[in-house]
Amino acid sequence: MSSIYGNLFRISTFGESHGKGVGVVVDGCPAGLAITEAEIQAELDRRRPGQSRLTTPRKEADKVEILSGLFEGKTTGTPIGMLVPNTDQRSHDYGDMVDLYRPSHADFTYDLKYGFRDYRGGGRASARETIGRVAAGAIARKILKEACGTEILAYVSQVGTIDADIDPLKASFKTIESNLVRCADPVAAEKMAKAIDDARKAQDSLGGVIQLVVKKAPKGVGEPVFNRAEAELARAFLSLPATKGFEVGSGFAGTRLRGSQHNDAFVSKGKKAGFDAIGTETNRSGGIQGGITNGEPILCRIAFKPTATISMPQKTVDKKGKERILAAKGRHDPCVLPRAVVIVEAMAALTLVDLFLEQRARFGLFK
Amino acid sequence: MSSIYGNLFRISTFGESHGKGVGVVVDGCPAGLAITEAEIQAELDRRRPGQSRLTTPRKEADKVEILSGLFEGKTTGTPIGMLVPNTDQRSHDYGDMVDLYRPSHADFTYDLKYGFRDYRGGGRASARETIGRVAAGAIARKILKEACGTEILAYVSQVGTIDADIDPLKASFKTIESNLVRCADPVAAEKMAKAIDDARKAQDSLGGVIQLVVKKAPKGVGEPVFNRAEAELARAFLSLPATKGFEVGSGFAGTRLRGSQHNDAFVSKGKKAGFDAIGTETNRSGGIQGGITNGEPILCRIAFKPTATISMPQKTVDKKGKERILAAKGRHDPCVLPRAVVIVEAMAALTLVDLFLEQRARFGLFK
Amino acid sequence: MSSIYGNLFRISTFGESHGKGVGVVVDGCPAGLAITEAEIQAELDRRRPGQSRLTTPRKEADKVEILSGLFEGKTTGTPIGMLVPNTDQRSHDYGDMVDLYRPSHADFTYDLKYGFRDYRGGGRASARETIGRVAAGAIARKILKEACGTEILAYVSQVGTIDADIDPLKASFKTIESNLVRCADPVAAEKMAKAIDDARKAQDSLGGVIQLVVKKAPKGVGEPVFNRAEAELARAFLSLPATKGFEVGSGFAGTRLRGSQHNDAFVSKGKKAGFDAIGTETNRSGGIQGGITNGEPILCRIAFKPTATISMPQKTVDKKGKERILAAKGRHDPCVLPRAVVIVEAMAALTLVDLFLEQRARFGLFK
Amino acid sequence: MSSIYGNLFRISTFGESHGKGVGVVVDGCPAGLAITEAEIQAELDRRRPGQSRLTTPRKEADKVEILSGLFEGKTTGTPIGMLVPNTDQRSHDYGDMVDLYRPSHADFTYDLKYGFRDYRGGGRASARETIGRVAAGAIARKILKEACGTEILAYVSQVGTIDADIDPLKASFKTIESNLVRCADPVAAEKMAKAIDDARKAQDSLGGVIQLVVKKAPKGVGEPVFNRAEAELARAFLSLPATKGFEVGSGFAGTRLRGSQHNDAFVSKGKKAGFDAIGTETNRSGGIQGGITNGEPILCRIAFKPTATISMPQKTVDKKGKERILAAKGRHDPCVLPRAVVIVEAMAALTLVDLFLEQRARFGLFK
Repeated sequence: MSSIYGNLFRISTFGESHGKGVGVVVDGCPAGLAITEAEIQAELDRRRPGQSRLTTPRKEADKVEILSGLFEGKTTGTPIGMLVPNTDQRSHDYGDMVDLYRPSHADFTYDLKYGFRDYRGGGRASARETIGRVAAGAIARKILKEACGTEILAYVSQVGTIDADIDPLKASFKTIESNLVRCADPVAAEKMAKAIDDARKAQDSLGGVIQLVVKKAPKGVGEPVFNRAEAELARAFLSLPATKGFEVGSGFAGTRLRGSQHNDAFVSKGKKAGFDAIGTETNRSGGIQGGITNGEPILCRIAFKPTATISMPQKTVDKKGKERILAAKGRHDPCVLPRAVVIVEAMAALTLVDLFLEQRARFGLFK
Repeated sequence: MSSIYGNLFRISTFGESHGKGVGVVVDGCPAGLAITEAEIQAELDRRRPGQSRLTTPRKEADKVEILSGLFEGKTTGTPIGMLVPNTDQRSHDYGDMVDLYRPSHADFTYDLKYGFRDYRGGGRASARETIGRVAAGAIARKILKEACGTEILAYVSQVGTIDADIDPLKASFKTIESNLVRCADPVAAEKMAKAIDDARKAQDSLGGVIQLVVKKAPKGVGEPVFNRAEAELARAFLSLPATKGFEVGSGFAGTRLRGSQHNDAFVSKGKKAGFDAIGTETNRSGGIQGGITNGEPILCRIAFKPTATISMPQKTVDKKGKERILAAKGRHDPCVLPRAVVIVEAMAALTLVDLFLEQRARFGLFK
Repeated sequence: MSSIYGNLFRISTFGESHGKGVGVVVDGCPAGLAITEAEIQAELDRRRPGQSRLTTPRKEADKVEILSGLFEGKTTGTPIGMLVPNTDQRSHDYGDMVDLYRPSHADFTYDLKYGFRDYRGGGRASARETIGRVAAGAIARKILKEACGTEILAYVSQVGTIDADIDPLKASFKTIESNLVRCADPVAAEKMAKAIDDARKAQDSLGGVIQLVVKKAPKGVGEPVFNRAEAELARAFLSLPATKGFEVGSGFAGTRLRGSQHNDAFVSKGKKAGFDAIGTETNRSGGIQGGITNGEPILCRIAFKPTATISMPQKTVDKKGKERILAAKGRHDPCVLPRAVVIVEAMAALTLVDLFLEQRARFGLFK
Repeated sequence: MSSIYGNLFRISTFGESHGKGVGVVVDGCPAGLAITEAEIQAELDRRRPGQSRLTTPRKEADKVEILSGLFEGKTTGTPIGMLVPNTDQRSHDYGDMVDLYRPSHADFTYDLKYGFRDYRGGGRASARETIGRVAAGAIARKILKEACGTEILAYVSQVGTIDADIDPLKASFKTIESNLVRCADPVAAEKMAKAIDDARKAQDSLGGVIQLVVKKAPKGVGEPVFNRAEAELARAFLSLPATKGFEVGSGFAGTRLRGSQHNDAFVSKGKKAGFDAIGTETNRSGGIQGGITNGEPILCRIAFKPTATISMPQKTVDKKGKERILAAKGRHDPCVLPRAVVIVEAMAALTLVDLFLEQRARFGLFK
């Protein structure tokens, strides 16, 4: 189990679905950042279960408490402990869950790896694990905002077979947050909401794609060769439950173009000076070249599979390999994407702030 | 610059395109592995430039020398230093390369990040950097083979608009190595070779996709939540030059399915015992569930953009932001995929051996 | 601020003297270890303030709550969150502490490093920070005990000018815990207790030395060249507040001997087989040779300076550099050593369990 | 085996006593530092064997070659590979060394840990391993000098029973380098040289102590709680062969003082402004308080045991545990301290530059 992330801005998350609570310790946060519990709570509220009819009916206030690391409203540079108690971990008979393996879930592999598992609600493999990421991500996001003006925005761009039709650079937070799906295209959003409703009624589930747009990201960050910015982002997103793919810039579609069609020509950008005067005409690079951010918007797409937990009966085996039929009870999201939007933003923030601090360590030491 | 990779099996690579040489130090290799320079050389020969008309004409023997860490033909557990001298770093006038930024290359971002750059042949952003990965990967591959019987195989499954038509599980090393493209489908391979030839003649370049198949991978490896197996693989592949995307199992296509269509039913697998008796009917998970390998083949796809360096004239700017026309001379691959196959295999080996050792550290300590 | 320790068995501590609480997240603990809150509490009780007249009068129950990572009494391999609420953080006027720098304390350097500080009770520089280490150390200790039979024992061997007179190998836990000073020599213990009483009455403080003895430590652990066992132990102990020195085996005294006097002759050890049949006649190496444990008892000594906080008036400066007189109020230990014994044991356990797991990752893979 | 050191300024060393060569890769060096092979060679020449009658007669030019990472005389921010070929690895019959364990050497523990060992000249446990540290340390030292004006100086302050009598702050590089022992006190230096000569003639060896003084070290560096500056320094020095102890500031002697005697009073330092106006009257803290450098000189002492390899016959056992007599042939230093001075300086530089970069990453981000 490795629940520590980052090199200079490090987070350590803990907690299971049905334990006492979940949380995170943030280590290496620069001192002097003004931040409040309310700012962190705002992000957690976007991730919270039960926020709409499209999400799991589990009711959790997900109220965060900051335990350490702040003094007079500012970070002190010492570890920031944050705790979110679990309140709606239903006490009930887990029945079949004890020895049945849910298809495409982590039950079997946890048994294989650790020898046994906490079968209550998915244990650590539950999406509840991501609360710590979101709480820490709120701090990372504010650092980037304050230091670089960075704007991190994600939205659902595909649910099942329905695709949004919008230029990512024109997506607005207001529109995204004004619909239950968190889609930047309001027309597609309605269709997506209906599709999710239909899937739930059919005891089934849907997957989709989240689009990430980062404007005013710190420039020059990313540490070739192994810690290229896109490599770190890919790892960040693929560490999220249910993810199956990652693209930056032109992605898989770009592989069908010729170099002359694909290359982003450098152009002069008006009145600015020095490196700020240089940009690219197109942005198939997705804001990253040679593993380093170039000042253009960072564009990524993340694939999420349909929720593995569905209510309809499924074929599976038990611990002894005996074939059985599983009818999952529990509570679950028929489509994880609306809530995953904020988690994607959090991972982007955590990844970029770490690379930003690493660049800051060495940049400009010798002119 | 971060050129160290791995937690327990660590590699540290060095060297530029036009310096004295490139190499790697492998730290943390278990003691007692029998390995020879010839075994490492065999992998380097597959990566070598000039191996066919489809690759860069740069001529390099890429002869590896093991400097340390072996005794009487076996690893001693101490660092294994390996060096490959550069021999064909043409001495010439770099002319425009000194202050022109090649589109979609790392020239601009290296200047932005480091303040200046070694402009000779791409410096550290050159694909020559991957030699150290391949040399170290040969050792990682042998460890996995000896310890788990692991078979790591990659091939080109798409070049430009041409797709291979073959079940990844049926791909054979012999077929792959018998054509210049390293495609597992011999019919597609011929079309791909022609397409690459055409692109080169047109002073242009092509991209494509590499398919990875890992059979008999160690089971139970991957460290949730942040170091899930797919997350580490994604980072590994996205750390390669020219990569734009990653998929595991069903990938982006799987996001369009419903849960009931997508889930991999668990089934009993014949006469085996314990966990070995349990497998999945389908493998949309791509051999990884909950971030942990489950014993099914690992299936990944990696997107490579068309080579950024092309011979036809392109629009760009110089250091001062002045718009200019670039006509690249140099030597380059019109399509990097045939040579990238071995690099993908190396990164898979390096990633899996590291996770394997980490699992071995804790597994079975308390029954 | 770097509050994460370990590579495979990782702990992340948080919390200040006067915040809501202190705690730790343990990441990478092997699954299947049976452990209870009571076992962890037992160690915390040995560290607890107010346990005797020789320690600070601050009253804290230091009651630990395990938040995650256990299921049915066993570790699951997932992060173990532990929290100890602060209960006796007196609310009062900090007066001079806000802008006066206590001599030989961390006030000045925290301001220098972080720009400002939490001045209440020392903030993160308080010994209260060590609670997380002790809680995590209790788990590490049990792993070593279960897996290797390891016995970790520390005691106060010097207070001020009073030295214990006892062979470390003959020290007994029972004797150590039966006196207030935690000295293995009961005669010296009485003199030490009196000396501490006298120092407190004189508004002054004392330092001293703690002796560590580890029997049945895992063999073959320590990772040359940079992570030699003695190097990791030295870092572990020097990371504790108030430490000024470290010795292993013969230490500084051994530097005055000749090689022929200092070398530990290898001898055959009776009826055992293989490496277990080989030991050393003397143990000036302190159980570690070439950075690797050799099976003999590990012997270390750690120097603690006299407590920096004393009640008698002292010369100092304020933030503006103006010279002032400080008369510390607060509550503090006149001598930290009796309580530091358990912290030294915890750091030894944390360090050895991490090296043990690393050795287990690679050992015996290729015979 | 763990031969990687540092978090932001990372070095990876390799090579054995009797292999093809030894070397290092420096990863994470800031770009733009002007440095030459000659500057690195100068440090290696101070470490070189055969430099005087007091050292091993092994003859090695120890000529360094920079393989990568520099362009037009400056570091590019990419890995700096450096190689030093072995030239005088005598080919001979190792005879008894194959299965005899040299007392207090690493032979037995390497066999225990790795299963077998390179018995030629100590393999990786040879002091030859430190060449990579010295080469990398030369770069670290120059960074600190250029960025902060830091002066790192070490000298032999004790050999056997002979102690130097000099205030560390008055030690001069010129005096140190003008005698064979590298002692800052010329009178003691002569006695020490004679003592070493006598020990060699007696087929015996001597140990001693090295004093380190760092002036103008970067302020505010050190990362509490686990990576306190003194903790990192302790690990750095204890990772050197033959070390048995470490002290910072008042060290073990300081434990006998009372707090009122030991505390360093803060005082106003003349005309400077801000934090530069504040210093301490005494320096028992050794330049580090609360784990963070305070601007006063850093003072450390490192204990080295007498060389384990001696020519006189010694009792030992062979691999099978059979008791035997060893008469070491080989070539060795009768006292390692004169050559260890430069290695101590290198480790101090490597440690401080890493902490300096980490502090730079976060410092002053939010005023």
